[in-house]
Amino acid sequence: MATSLETQHPVKALAWAAKDPSGVFAPLKFSRRATGEHDVQFRVSYCGICHSDLHLAKNEWGSTIYPLIPGHEIAGVVTEVGNKVQKFKPGDKVAVGCIVGSCRECEECKINEESYCPKHVLSINARYYDGTVTYGGFSNLMVTNEDFVLRWPENFPLDKGAPLLCAGITTYSPLRRFGLDKPGVNVGVVGLGGIGHLTVKFAKALGSRVTVISTSISKKKEAIETFGADEFLVSHDQEQMQAAQGTLDGIIDTVSGDHSLQPLVNLLKPHGKLILVGLPTKLEVPVFPLILGGKSIVGTASGGVKETQEMLDFAAKHSILPDVEIISMDYVNTAMHRIEKNDVKYRFVIDVGNSLKDE
Amino acid sequence: MATSLETQHPVKALAWAAKDPSGVFAPLKFSRRATGEHDVQFRVSYCGICHSDLHLAKNEWGSTIYPLIPGHEIAGVVTEVGNKVQKFKPGDKVAVGCIVGSCRECEECKINEESYCPKHVLSINARYYDGTVTYGGFSNLMVTNEDFVLRWPENFPLDKGAPLLCAGITTYSPLRRFGLDKPGVNVGVVGLGGIGHLTVKFAKALGSRVTVISTSISKKKEAIETFGADEFLVSHDQEQMQAAQGTLDGIIDTVSGDHSLQPLVNLLKPHGKLILVGLPTKLEVPVFPLILGGKSIVGTASGGVKETQEMLDFAAKHSILPDVEIISMDYVNTAMHRIEKNDVKYRFVIDVGNSLKDE
Repeated sequence: MATSLETQHPVKALAWAAKDPSGVFAPLKFSRRATGEHDVQFRVSYCGICHSDLHLAKNEWGSTIYPLIPGHEIAGVVTEVGNKVQKFKPGDKVAVGCIVGSCRECEECKINEESYCPKHVLSINARYYDGTVTYGGFSNLMVTNEDFVLRWPENFPLDKGAPLLCAGITTYSPLRRFGLDKPGVNVGVVGLGGIGHLTVKFAKALGSRVTVISTSISKKKEAIETFGADEFLVSHDQEQMQAAQGTLDGIIDTVSGDHSLQPLVNLLKPHGKLILVGLPTKLEVPVFPLILGGKSIVGTASGGVKETQEMLDFAAKHSILPDVEIISMDYVNTAMHRIEKNDVKYRFVIDVGNSLKDE
Repeated sequence: MATSLETQHPVKALAWAAKDPSGVFAPLKFSRRATGEHDVQFRVSYCGICHSDLHLAKNEWGSTIYPLIPGHEIAGVVTEVGNKVQKFKPGDKVAVGCIVGSCRECEECKINEESYCPKHVLSINARYYDGTVTYGGFSNLMVTNEDFVLRWPENFPLDKGAPLLCAGITTYSPLRRFGLDKPGVNVGVVGLGGIGHLTVKFAKALGSRVTVISTSISKKKEAIETFGADEFLVSHDQEQMQAAQGTLDGIIDTVSGDHSLQPLVNLLKPHGKLILVGLPTKLEVPVFPLILGGKSIVGTASGGVKETQEMLDFAAKHSILPDVEIISMDYVNTAMHRIEKNDVKYRFVIDVGNSLKDE
């Protein structure tokens, strides 16, 4: 396997990979395909770490193909483009998020919703059209079809901005899709982590009124004073929760652990939407409150390429950046451990360009 | 209690009521308010039985106020109107459904969505604005504010049509709200009972393509040949269910028992909606399929007065009627027993006018 990984494509590449469900990362030599006529090859400068990278590293969803090279919040600088590529040239700052391919023919692709194309190819742990496994940004080099490469906005930091590629679009997309993007609209945010703190920032920049709902009062000061939230509810404070019933148009629920949805659904106005962006494994449908209020529980998966570009441009215009801790590649095992304990404010970004070296 | 029920209002009335959680019905004398200036008094001719009448009779939701006079699919003939009532006159055929009051001031009331008004008053087992309990159509007489009285369409059978007041609007409303009401749209219907068979009839009349999903192949012939469904899936036939994945725009799930939502969510196209109209108590959210497909689980409660009138007029125009078994009042205990066993095709209607007599 190691040999075939190194030789299956012509371009030598380096990564840190997890080799088994222990989820421990170690250096790995592999290879990237030659730059096709519609491909963009770029050096990875920075790569954010998402909780799903950790789930995959430990095979918690039972779908991991080892060795796993994760990382789907990838930002870098173009080194080579295919001869039919018009949009990018060497030296351009670019980025890649969750998706590197889609069928381009289905109803979803036609409306720029590639993340919902049934044949889309994820940036990591998926089979590309040539049959090889996709490897992400825990590596020095990416080769990606130009249609799935984002243009990095001018004067926008490549390091701090990297997590926008997954955490950012994951919340920006439902805020826009469900009309939670304007003055007069009340948006709830459950959980003030990587996606949660970005939800507050985006929703505020879009003009909405934002209520953070958290298990911990300790986050109140930061939610309101730093991120600009308007209200803060402690989820186990019955009185606060009761007083806020029926006040929110929509809630972005970022919590990955199992939790009760009923108190959240009760916060919604009639026809309100509880939007799940975390990945809990066991949640119960609060049937009565849903039916009586005509409310919905909604899933949402990232966003399409066009919308991701729009999100990046919006973030640059409004100076929306996640709060990050920049780390070197050899810190990744510690970082994963800390993510497991929710001990990060609020997203790790690996300085791949300066810390991933040939041994 | 019995005395106050008979004398709390000036107009004598008769009903069959459940007096305790045994859910056994027996005759009861009670009283109705005098016809107020905006009230319509009408003799009840027919009243449908809904499964929720049975849930309430047995206090299965823990909210029953005994004695319970259920019945919220009520059709009859006007006997008296208040002096400010313009829309109705004695002799008019009229109907009342799930709601007899709402605040008229909230956002929902302003858009004719009275069933989502937080202060709405249900036709049964609720507190009216005068503090008395609301009693439904298992009685000889109703007195209802004119704004919650429906006009019965000309030449439309009052007996068979009664169940439209709850079962009909409960499915018509989401079909319209969620755009499942036109050619080119694929609608699924889970469960071929009272609401289910009406869903097929309404969806077909609206032009949609209809797939019935049922646990029992025995219903296939009737679903397709009698009600006009286009497809029939047996829910435990893995092969059939697999082949139909990603084909439906929306599903009306009428099942009241607990069941797995994941196979249903899998039948939906991206962004498809699984619409719950039954009242199961324990359902699990299929988080991954919801998120990956951007799909929703949606609750829906009946419809507003304006939409209910529209539904009745549409049903009359397209000759949409439920299949019913017409019974006399003294059969109601047997009928409830048969509803419990799903032994009715597809809805009971009590011939109140001819069978509820003074003892």
